[in-house]
Amino acid sequence: MNDTVNRQILLVEKPTGKLGPEHFRLTKGAIPEPKDGEALVRTRYISLDAANRAWMHGATYRAAVEANTVMAGGGIAEVVASKDPGLKPGDIVFGDTGWQDFAAVPARHLTKMPKLEPMTHLLSVYGIAGLTAYFGLLHVGKPKEGETVVVSAAAGSVGSIVGQIAKIKGCRVVGIAGGKDKCHWLTSELGFDAAVDYKDGATYKALRAAAPKGIDVYFDNVGGDILEACLAQMNNRGRIACCGAISQYDGVPSAHGPRGVPGLIVVKRLVMQGFIVMDYMDQSQAALADLQSWVASGKLKVQEDVIHGIENTPQALIGLLAGENRGKRMVKV
Amino acid sequence: MNDTVNRQILLVEKPTGKLGPEHFRLTKGAIPEPKDGEALVRTRYISLDAANRAWMHGATYRAAVEANTVMAGGGIAEVVASKDPGLKPGDIVFGDTGWQDFAAVPARHLTKMPKLEPMTHLLSVYGIAGLTAYFGLLHVGKPKEGETVVVSAAAGSVGSIVGQIAKIKGCRVVGIAGGKDKCHWLTSELGFDAAVDYKDGATYKALRAAAPKGIDVYFDNVGGDILEACLAQMNNRGRIACCGAISQYDGVPSAHGPRGVPGLIVVKRLVMQGFIVMDYMDQSQAALADLQSWVASGKLKVQEDVIHGIENTPQALIGLLAGENRGKRMVKV
Repeated sequence: MNDTVNRQILLVEKPTGKLGPEHFRLTKGAIPEPKDGEALVRTRYISLDAANRAWMHGATYRAAVEANTVMAGGGIAEVVASKDPGLKPGDIVFGDTGWQDFAAVPARHLTKMPKLEPMTHLLSVYGIAGLTAYFGLLHVGKPKEGETVVVSAAAGSVGSIVGQIAKIKGCRVVGIAGGKDKCHWLTSELGFDAAVDYKDGATYKALRAAAPKGIDVYFDNVGGDILEACLAQMNNRGRIACCGAISQYDGVPSAHGPRGVPGLIVVKRLVMQGFIVMDYMDQSQAALADLQSWVASGKLKVQEDVIHGIENTPQALIGLLAGENRGKRMVKV
Repeated sequence: MNDTVNRQILLVEKPTGKLGPEHFRLTKGAIPEPKDGEALVRTRYISLDAANRAWMHGATYRAAVEANTVMAGGGIAEVVASKDPGLKPGDIVFGDTGWQDFAAVPARHLTKMPKLEPMTHLLSVYGIAGLTAYFGLLHVGKPKEGETVVVSAAAGSVGSIVGQIAKIKGCRVVGIAGGKDKCHWLTSELGFDAAVDYKDGATYKALRAAAPKGIDVYFDNVGGDILEACLAQMNNRGRIACCGAISQYDGVPSAHGPRGVPGLIVVKRLVMQGFIVMDYMDQSQAALADLQSWVASGKLKVQEDVIHGIENTPQALIGLLAGENRGKRMVKV
């Protein structure tokens, strides 16, 4: 990296099927001038998230990303110059910097972050991933001590934290993940009570064995067949926290939704609730205090997967969608 | 009817496809002797409900109905003899009498009802239908004044009351029903703001026109395609009260659930919640007080569809599943 060139990764075409490297192009642009109310920031870490792929489908909770523009994405950045009284050079911020070295961003779209080490924790346990796990599990799923909590994409950035918080709250915790290694890691390193390898084929049966008393809270990161399998094994008055549908993002989404909707929802009096972490930001201080104390006491292990070099960002996302990461994946620019 | 014969309608075979008269047989049985703790009751009105058909599929919130037994069903009955201190001859009760003149039922499974005229109201507005509408709309859907409420099977026993309560609460109310006549009845007689005829084919478009500001609360009686159409038009933070899935009961259920689950639930932060009226029975006195005052003031119109003769009960259910009723259908034994 030098200080006069702005490396940028463009989304050159919106994928209709599986995302591939051909959908991206690395280019070099000018370093923008911040306008009044904006800050010029230098991106330090780019966050990789399944949601990046969802944005390519169309409007979600944000506008769709468009072809031939810099790929959108959250990141941790350092303020280089500021035309806003609230920010000064050297400040560390979180915001949608896009996949590029430098961006001029309205200050109101940037969140000033504390200076802590390692800085990567601002994207993992103290960032969107940790807060999503915290609010989705505790405010939407509302697990009680002794209940069974199941989480999908359990080895991912959010799932790995969900499962550990559920353990802290005294629940039986089952993780669903792809592959024997990830499953072994969940039980041996993160303290999950059981893990189900969905690549093994017999998800229903394995889930029944792992959650013999049924499921009280299902934290859904994936949708599709796994949601369907969990629905079938929910207990009466169970809660499903709908966080994402990664199985539906990359490629052609399922023609239909999961069986059991709405029949099982009625009969079992289930609650399925969607949430977006931004809606809980007014309560983030309390959440961060809990997360920090759990990390400090060793009850919550932080797993990060840092890839080096902005040029590797497309492949980092493609790999994340294929499930190759453990914990929070990010690119060190 | 005479006093020595017990006419009974048996379910002779569990339907795998569409329910027909061939699945039932009228027979004559003995009048049972009540045991200790039981009451002998004479059925006065049999309630017809879409749930009757769901019970034939398997266990729901109650055990499945079995072939070659008296068809299960709720009814209003009069106590003829009692071996329980809590009931005496002449008492009016609600319970699962089954489709027969006489039944010996454990007193703890019978609910003593007030003696009011017309007695049919104990099955409609002051019965399961009215309470289901009340709790499902107000405790699950939680509409606010000025919001848009959509209800399916709107001309049915529950739907017709849901829509009227939503009007009382100051909402814009859209009913979805089958056929022009029912739709006209909803708007001209019951005060709905708009009605969508799902038999008309263009449900999405008609729904968009009827609910131009989107849907805040959807009271779902039907599941299937109509649930899918409503999901697509829910507003952020909308609530779906899942009451039933009549579209899935009679015949072969859909191979899959509605599209948009869980994707739209996440993006729009929706809550989909199933409920069963029995779970709210501890609050029934307050609900009945509200319902009675609305009926007395003319704000809530009671529509009943009374069919005469126990021998017509199978056809009454078959017809209900085909959507031929308006308001609460029951059989006068």
